[in-house]
Amino acid sequence: MLHEYFPEVTKPIEYEGPQSDNPLAFKVYDPQKKVGAKTMAQHLRFAVAYWHTFRGTGSDMFGGGAFERPWQSASDPMERAGDTLRAAFEFFQKLGVDYYCFHDRDIAPEGSDFAESCRNLEEIVSQAKVLQEETGKKLLWGTANLFSHPMYTHGAGSNPDAHVFAHAMAQVKHALDATAELGGENYVFWGGREGYETLLNTDYRHEQEQLARFFHYAIDYKKEIGFEGQFLIEPKPAEPAKHQYDHDAATVLSFLREFDLLDHFKLNIEANHATLAGHTFHHDLTVAAAAGKLGSIDANQGDLQLGWDTDQFPTNLYDAIYAMLVVLEQGGIGSGGLNFDAKARRGSIRTIDLFHAHIGGMDTFAKGLVIAHKIKVDGKLDEFVKDRYSSYSSGFGEKIMHGKVSLEEMEKWIGEHGDPTPRSGRQELLENIVNSYIFPG
Amino acid sequence: MLHEYFPEVTKPIEYEGPQSDNPLAFKVYDPQKKVGAKTMAQHLRFAVAYWHTFRGTGSDMFGGGAFERPWQSASDPMERAGDTLRAAFEFFQKLGVDYYCFHDRDIAPEGSDFAESCRNLEEIVSQAKVLQEETGKKLLWGTANLFSHPMYTHGAGSNPDAHVFAHAMAQVKHALDATAELGGENYVFWGGREGYETLLNTDYRHEQEQLARFFHYAIDYKKEIGFEGQFLIEPKPAEPAKHQYDHDAATVLSFLREFDLLDHFKLNIEANHATLAGHTFHHDLTVAAAAGKLGSIDANQGDLQLGWDTDQFPTNLYDAIYAMLVVLEQGGIGSGGLNFDAKARRGSIRTIDLFHAHIGGMDTFAKGLVIAHKIKVDGKLDEFVKDRYSSYSSGFGEKIMHGKVSLEEMEKWIGEHGDPTPRSGRQELLENIVNSYIFPG
Amino acid sequence: MLHEYFPEVTKPIEYEGPQSDNPLAFKVYDPQKKVGAKTMAQHLRFAVAYWHTFRGTGSDMFGGGAFERPWQSASDPMERAGDTLRAAFEFFQKLGVDYYCFHDRDIAPEGSDFAESCRNLEEIVSQAKVLQEETGKKLLWGTANLFSHPMYTHGAGSNPDAHVFAHAMAQVKHALDATAELGGENYVFWGGREGYETLLNTDYRHEQEQLARFFHYAIDYKKEIGFEGQFLIEPKPAEPAKHQYDHDAATVLSFLREFDLLDHFKLNIEANHATLAGHTFHHDLTVAAAAGKLGSIDANQGDLQLGWDTDQFPTNLYDAIYAMLVVLEQGGIGSGGLNFDAKARRGSIRTIDLFHAHIGGMDTFAKGLVIAHKIKVDGKLDEFVKDRYSSYSSGFGEKIMHGKVSLEEMEKWIGEHGDPTPRSGRQELLENIVNSYIFPG
Amino acid sequence: MLHEYFPEVTKPIEYEGPQSDNPLAFKVYDPQKKVGAKTMAQHLRFAVAYWHTFRGTGSDMFGGGAFERPWQSASDPMERAGDTLRAAFEFFQKLGVDYYCFHDRDIAPEGSDFAESCRNLEEIVSQAKVLQEETGKKLLWGTANLFSHPMYTHGAGSNPDAHVFAHAMAQVKHALDATAELGGENYVFWGGREGYETLLNTDYRHEQEQLARFFHYAIDYKKEIGFEGQFLIEPKPAEPAKHQYDHDAATVLSFLREFDLLDHFKLNIEANHATLAGHTFHHDLTVAAAAGKLGSIDANQGDLQLGWDTDQFPTNLYDAIYAMLVVLEQGGIGSGGLNFDAKARRGSIRTIDLFHAHIGGMDTFAKGLVIAHKIKVDGKLDEFVKDRYSSYSSGFGEKIMHGKVSLEEMEKWIGEHGDPTPRSGRQELLENIVNSYIFPG
Repeated sequence: MLHEYFPEVTKPIEYEGPQSDNPLAFKVYDPQKKVGAKTMAQHLRFAVAYWHTFRGTGSDMFGGGAFERPWQSASDPMERAGDTLRAAFEFFQKLGVDYYCFHDRDIAPEGSDFAESCRNLEEIVSQAKVLQEETGKKLLWGTANLFSHPMYTHGAGSNPDAHVFAHAMAQVKHALDATAELGGENYVFWGGREGYETLLNTDYRHEQEQLARFFHYAIDYKKEIGFEGQFLIEPKPAEPAKHQYDHDAATVLSFLREFDLLDHFKLNIEANHATLAGHTFHHDLTVAAAAGKLGSIDANQGDLQLGWDTDQFPTNLYDAIYAMLVVLEQGGIGSGGLNFDAKARRGSIRTIDLFHAHIGGMDTFAKGLVIAHKIKVDGKLDEFVKDRYSSYSSGFGEKIMHGKVSLEEMEKWIGEHGDPTPRSGRQELLENIVNSYIFPG
Repeated sequence: MLHEYFPEVTKPIEYEGPQSDNPLAFKVYDPQKKVGAKTMAQHLRFAVAYWHTFRGTGSDMFGGGAFERPWQSASDPMERAGDTLRAAFEFFQKLGVDYYCFHDRDIAPEGSDFAESCRNLEEIVSQAKVLQEETGKKLLWGTANLFSHPMYTHGAGSNPDAHVFAHAMAQVKHALDATAELGGENYVFWGGREGYETLLNTDYRHEQEQLARFFHYAIDYKKEIGFEGQFLIEPKPAEPAKHQYDHDAATVLSFLREFDLLDHFKLNIEANHATLAGHTFHHDLTVAAAAGKLGSIDANQGDLQLGWDTDQFPTNLYDAIYAMLVVLEQGGIGSGGLNFDAKARRGSIRTIDLFHAHIGGMDTFAKGLVIAHKIKVDGKLDEFVKDRYSSYSSGFGEKIMHGKVSLEEMEKWIGEHGDPTPRSGRQELLENIVNSYIFPG
Repeated sequence: MLHEYFPEVTKPIEYEGPQSDNPLAFKVYDPQKKVGAKTMAQHLRFAVAYWHTFRGTGSDMFGGGAFERPWQSASDPMERAGDTLRAAFEFFQKLGVDYYCFHDRDIAPEGSDFAESCRNLEEIVSQAKVLQEETGKKLLWGTANLFSHPMYTHGAGSNPDAHVFAHAMAQVKHALDATAELGGENYVFWGGREGYETLLNTDYRHEQEQLARFFHYAIDYKKEIGFEGQFLIEPKPAEPAKHQYDHDAATVLSFLREFDLLDHFKLNIEANHATLAGHTFHHDLTVAAAAGKLGSIDANQGDLQLGWDTDQFPTNLYDAIYAMLVVLEQGGIGSGGLNFDAKARRGSIRTIDLFHAHIGGMDTFAKGLVIAHKIKVDGKLDEFVKDRYSSYSSGFGEKIMHGKVSLEEMEKWIGEHGDPTPRSGRQELLENIVNSYIFPG
Repeated sequence: MLHEYFPEVTKPIEYEGPQSDNPLAFKVYDPQKKVGAKTMAQHLRFAVAYWHTFRGTGSDMFGGGAFERPWQSASDPMERAGDTLRAAFEFFQKLGVDYYCFHDRDIAPEGSDFAESCRNLEEIVSQAKVLQEETGKKLLWGTANLFSHPMYTHGAGSNPDAHVFAHAMAQVKHALDATAELGGENYVFWGGREGYETLLNTDYRHEQEQLARFFHYAIDYKKEIGFEGQFLIEPKPAEPAKHQYDHDAATVLSFLREFDLLDHFKLNIEANHATLAGHTFHHDLTVAAAAGKLGSIDANQGDLQLGWDTDQFPTNLYDAIYAMLVVLEQGGIGSGGLNFDAKARRGSIRTIDLFHAHIGGMDTFAKGLVIAHKIKVDGKLDEFVKDRYSSYSSGFGEKIMHGKVSLEEMEKWIGEHGDPTPRSGRQELLENIVNSYIFPG
């Protein structure tokens, strides 16, 4: 590595096991260790989020940038972008993750006009391609930033001004080109300003139809260029908009169904977005998976008592276990992965804090994987659930489930069999069983 | 009236106008007054909720019944049910509302077995039919209570036990019969325990399929008996269940689309349920209306700082204006109405408080109607919105909206026309305009 | 035991260690095991909540009782109360907890007038005293139920009617007598309806002064009868009242300071009440402990995405660790304990579920204790914190902390020393350290 | 005016009455109109918040500045500050408000070191003094920004580093000097980062003691320079910090009592901060007023369904009525005022939107004042409340309230008088009465 942006990390982070007290080692994550038929790395497919880790400044609504990042010191924007890219690949290698994710404007600066912005993007993409080849690192997904520029204040695809719509589509075109060029395995749509601030100035129906049009155009172009990656929509209920149209998994599925888009998309479920919508992470993963649409995961963590997207690194073992149960149940995350859409706290100002943060997230999900795998192998929870619904698998219940019993017959049957006998749902026992996998430490 | 349960109200409540300080008079609601082409009564179609107004006891999780209701004093359950029915019709007449709504178990007591419960229901329905004919009062909607009995603890249609499913369907059959017999204009499904307490014991996908089956059975039976009323689903996100499947309007629409049920249902939007889901009442009404599915309204009010269904009577004028804007925009509430699914506070222990509560709700919505109508007639808000989207109505924007422009063409067009010019959304001005209809008092 | 109410539990629950898969065994809690200088039992002082465990019915706002409890079957109220008491002591012995807690109305039924209620209470207290002596079980705390009876709808001590105030005080008198008679180590005040529904009918200042008077009367009576137990106030922000005066730890401390009550009270912090107030459990424990006022704990767990008191059994290991860190830091819970103010879910209808629930809570806190103890012994977290504030321990910082530097001198010092150098707060590293105690399982 | 920054407003905003549809006129606010003994202007004492109105850019966490402000175009920071100041005074005059509020860093730019920052502040203060004299405009309050600079990330007075503490105090010194120099009527402390992100790295007790020291130093300096303005603390529960120490009114009062600071402070209650703490605006105003500590108001509005400080302009008439009821009850806002700590939405990009926003807020509070005054004059609500507590004003109730009845006597009295008769709290009736002041429009 020509320039060392992380000199405090002198060698790649390695697995040292649970007894190690080296903060720059993995306690659980051991990339080549088999868990069932796959290695931990194959199961988890971790990705680094370019925007937070390399472009984040620690700023919030009450204060500007707090981090000093050596890769952000050059005065020329393109030089800065190149430095940042090299810092990123140094980080990927030292941390030992295989994937990263970006928005177009994360990796390349806005130019003086759209054409220059596109040229900037192409230049950085060509540099990234070289670095990918040199290091073996891969792009999990790319996307276009359609929310930061003032022109997108009232939305991109849902903007009341067709001029903005056209600009957004042109930007998507280039972001798709860039993602394809770098072999991105997915392309994500997060509609941060696709929503409204007040219904007083909003034609809700019109904006829904615009958005449907927006996605159909993207599908057309994807086919045109032969991009094979998976399209993903990332739900979020609010922030920045008062209300975002991609509110939660169910709302997105409804939209996709209404506008004949269901075959073309899967969902990218973010923990903190699910909880902002009033759901558990586990819930929104389940809703997506039940529809066959769980495509990828933004592995972060919110603060359930704060009403904004805190984007913390995931450290809660319970959430990791539940997430991995859903992933294992559906046979893996497919072309998706676990993207750390998370940022070090404003007070964690050092570059070394970026390592602590990612190591903690990786160990938490590795531990979650190990436990979820044990739970599946042991089968106690699955058996309980299977048994609970068994009345629908034969006899009268099976006929009911297949629509073959009339209401009159059901009434007659109740007359003969009386009221059902209540059964315990055993919630406390099942919670104890989950803890029995955690407590032996 | 044979027995006067409300002797403190010596004559029907009448409109006395805004200067009256008689608490037992309407200040705004004047049933025969025309607002546009329809009378206030035709617009608003108010209904009384049988469960809260006649069966409510003021109990909460920390204390039992606090209300003494003379119609609940008889020791024989059927005698009590008959007394309650007569009290109800006295109330409807004195208050001057045309409609009421009930669950099967509100009007008739549970028997010692299902057959007796059915006979009880039939007996009370026959009494209600006589009273309806005598008074001209009508049934807005009926429904089955599939959540109070312990057998429904783990759900009705979504219960893991097929035996419970059969019981629920048999109960729906009778509730549909009762509703049809009384000329109910709608039938509502509120799935209070159709949801889960913990995903650890839940097969989410199986329960969704069960619920779809449940609704298809109901549709079949509706056709069988020739019931012409509208089927309605009432969304709610949680409570009593940790998570309810009919979370909000969007979630219900997604479910209806997925399981081929969309043609058979509309939505009954409740203000307090919308706000518990993190939406404004205005929002969920808009979502339902945009899908052509706003069928009826539960006109109550929650406390946005309390996390449960407080079911307060609606007194917030802003919410009433926004609701009536949506209703007027879609040309009226159709066969639905405004049902006061609201309860007097536990501390409002007197029967006279029931009059204060309903009068307040009726005046609030009448005022909301008057202002919403003025706003529509004046057209300032509508014009602003129409103008805001006008770029899609002609030229390049129109072509975009119809899918006739490629991304390459859009990029070229941006190259020629440059970045769009941002426009103000004018939220503060529009909010001032709404207040300009309220402030002249 | 004369009557076995829990025949499915044939012998007392025992410690079998982490590898046991007997659901009726402790995996972690081993009462006689030493953790530091004290046994687990001495550290944790678990108590069973009489109201939930023996009087709970599984009812909620949408359905009545769901549990069948054999000890609640007698038709005579006093016979039922006696049966319940015997069931309770059978449960305490089989579970192996040393303490219990009750409200007056939990253990003895309301009579036809106040005098009879008092006689009922005395009779049951005399029975309980015999059972305590026979079994060695003890009363952690008693209290009066001043919220269930309709007369308390608008509060007890804060009721606008002095007649109600007098009744509440008379009831407190007897509850204090009962607690003293049974050797209760504390007496708790939870002001469930000491608050308001609407400020429109409330004289806030007057109610605060009433409450202060209420507590002073209780202190006087405590002295009069020579009761040595600790007085505790239990904060909760709302529910049943829209707003409760004992909102959170800080609010209660403010009230105690304002009305010269601070010396006479400590706080009983409930996890679910803290989280309903928007705080972590850890936070409200810390606030209480920092004031030297952490007297006891209601060890339960809420659902952070539901806005009411779900009173779940505690199964979250993180919360247990943080709670025990605060307890260990202050040298133990003193005369208080960990009371399971928690209820089995409505769907957990069997009596065996009560065992699962308590075992899970006890194991969770035992594990929390073990880890918190290790963290304190290792000292890494404490050292980090101590070092972080070290600038105040000497030199200019020490002088500042003691108020000995003028603002002019500080400005001068800044002129000489320049701006401070930011330091990382190391949040991610510290979170990883906590997980390093959990993950080795 | 030399440079017109607001050329679209060609003359001062005037009162035109409720029928006007000129968006640049007041519909209700008529500064010289008498409401009781005082004019509207004297009652309301409106102030413009310098930071939002002149320094706000429309940026949020997902996008940078969206507003183009002509007064922010100069490249030299001090020239820009001077331009901004002149724009501000043009705005005050055209809008017709008498007061403004600022942070030190709003009006003058940070220099290369602390000394230069101080010189910058002094220079702008001298310019402001001239403009105040020329226009008659006044400073409601000043304050120091102790949260934006990275050095304050872990707090100012509560920072673990004494070096930061010293810097903060030096900054407070100059902000106090500036406020005094401009005749500020108050000085506000808002502790945006006085709190914690995680308790894992926090010594809560130490930080509380630091903060107490911080305030005592400020009091000392206030006395030293003879500043006569009122010190105010502004509560907020969170944001930016995970937990802020000045959580709500009750928490601040507790802190002031504990550390012997109560005599030196009043509270500045912000609507949006109250609601973020889970209280109504009405509640926190009431708590402050009941302690004789309601000093000033930040008149804005939050979105109760968004979990961050949206700082919207106040347009909700109900909240304005309730606020003015509290203010009138305590005899006015004293040396405080109604400061619009509110920002135009990101989409309201034009300078004219600033006028719409302020006009809406002023009209809303003017209407709230008019109605609150009518309610007080009519006396219906006050009489209801007075009557409700009348049992404490004489006889047994009066003796109870004065501590002159023993518990034995209360029990005896209950034996003689029996149980109290419940009374209705009449919440619905009282809510209808409030609406009866709004509906006549």
